[in-house]
Amino acid sequence: MTFAQRLVERITRVRTPLVVGLDPRWKSLPDSLRDGTDLASQAIAYQRFCCEIIDVVAPLVPAVKPQVAFFEQLGWQGMKALGGVIDHARSKGLLAIVDAKRGDIGSTAEGYASAWLGADSPWRGDALTVSPYLGDDALEPFAKVCHETDSGLFVLVKTSNPGSGALQDRRAEGRPICHHVAEWVEKLAQRDSDATGYGSIGAVVGATYPEQLAELRTLMPHIMFLVPGFGSQGGTAADVAPAFDERGLGAIVNSSRAIIFAHQRPEFAELDWQRAVESATREAIEQLATVAKIG
Amino acid sequence: MTFAQRLVERITRVRTPLVVGLDPRWKSLPDSLRDGTDLASQAIAYQRFCCEIIDVVAPLVPAVKPQVAFFEQLGWQGMKALGGVIDHARSKGLLAIVDAKRGDIGSTAEGYASAWLGADSPWRGDALTVSPYLGDDALEPFAKVCHETDSGLFVLVKTSNPGSGALQDRRAEGRPICHHVAEWVEKLAQRDSDATGYGSIGAVVGATYPEQLAELRTLMPHIMFLVPGFGSQGGTAADVAPAFDERGLGAIVNSSRAIIFAHQRPEFAELDWQRAVESATREAIEQLATVAKIG
Repeated sequence: MTFAQRLVERITRVRTPLVVGLDPRWKSLPDSLRDGTDLASQAIAYQRFCCEIIDVVAPLVPAVKPQVAFFEQLGWQGMKALGGVIDHARSKGLLAIVDAKRGDIGSTAEGYASAWLGADSPWRGDALTVSPYLGDDALEPFAKVCHETDSGLFVLVKTSNPGSGALQDRRAEGRPICHHVAEWVEKLAQRDSDATGYGSIGAVVGATYPEQLAELRTLMPHIMFLVPGFGSQGGTAADVAPAFDERGLGAIVNSSRAIIFAHQRPEFAELDWQRAVESATREAIEQLATVAKIG
Repeated sequence: MTFAQRLVERITRVRTPLVVGLDPRWKSLPDSLRDGTDLASQAIAYQRFCCEIIDVVAPLVPAVKPQVAFFEQLGWQGMKALGGVIDHARSKGLLAIVDAKRGDIGSTAEGYASAWLGADSPWRGDALTVSPYLGDDALEPFAKVCHETDSGLFVLVKTSNPGSGALQDRRAEGRPICHHVAEWVEKLAQRDSDATGYGSIGAVVGATYPEQLAELRTLMPHIMFLVPGFGSQGGTAADVAPAFDERGLGAIVNSSRAIIFAHQRPEFAELDWQRAVESATREAIEQLATVAKIG
């Protein structure tokens, strides 16, 4: 099955487009997990934290999105923990979308693609986020590996940060740079869209710029969107509504901190941290159910 | 000492701006190092290969540039090997410029910055390459850590690949996107340039577009350039000449494959592989000596 087929199958089964972002941060971890502060102990704590979250959310959501930066902070021990987290997610039937925002040229791009998505990949994510600054030719090696291994790609098009417009909204030849990138993504994707109406190539489009999200939806009709910025960053369910087609498909919406650190939220203070994660996940699913009518 | 001071001190001592790129690839490794094909054995071979190159080039060049993609291909074992390579380079007095092209927003960018350059970094590179697609605000956390730990940053401005123009040369408000990025870089750098005339913030500008390199030099007078594309990618010494100031400073020029896989070049076929690396390094140094008049 292609990445799009696996993703649509999971979304349809759990009836939500919610993705849980795995962004472990030492200071925000539940006290019970913070044993020993050397890198090896921290890495074990990160892995345990993420795997317990996976156990809680596996019946509820289609995918998780580990953020590589936080694992890299712990050196090779962190990267080893990341491998364990990806494996655990997949063993529980979740798709693992590796948020690494990689990008390079020629054979180096091939290196990153095979590292994260290749047949012999030691990490073996289901999909990877990539950055388009180096040009459309730099995306090709990633697309090629996706095609070979039925994995997916999410190209940064419009990000959720306050300064994303500094480059992405700059107008060139009458339209913003992110529209040019959208055009590359649509073109790359045309080669392998499948029966779902979507293909292996997706786009990252932030929830924090809802008007642009609607425009980009029109420009990329067959592209699965990965939408960050929902929840802690301020994006609402109404903001992400334009991302979905009439089947409630076409987008997955990520929430990280509001879910994984739910034990810090006053309304969940009386729950143990795993139940806080579950409650926050159900809350986000309910919010999204108002805009994504699945099945 | 700041990163710029350390780099200028090294360049002046060895009298060359040549940087050796460490891009290990399994199929190109000398036969004598290819023992066992599992990830752990390959990682050991990568580390041994890079460390032996470091031993050869340490008296000759100011810095090495490990390419993270190739280490990531080997999973956590590869990342452990990368740590060993960075440590070995620094122990031999070389600066280690980590070519990772990282980039993310807010606290995730802080994560990458502290992972690679922070005071508690498990890798502890001297400098890191970063991608600007997410905007100028996404560069701030990297610049902050550089300031705190006297490390350096090289922001992708104009890359050496054939398709780099697809985004970087697109004209917005009358000038190419890469000029807008150059402006951010110059502005970030103004905060901490030092007695060398250069600061912790540098720019990646490819050798393969010499006219643009000259333009970008004018736009970023106080920015250290990291110039890829020399050697195997086709850039010549004459092409990189505009990168240097009258002291022969202001740029470092990377060569990877032409040096580290010199044993595959017919003219060095009779040498053992380490001597081939040495000969190719000396050859590149001679070529650059015609355009960078140091000291």
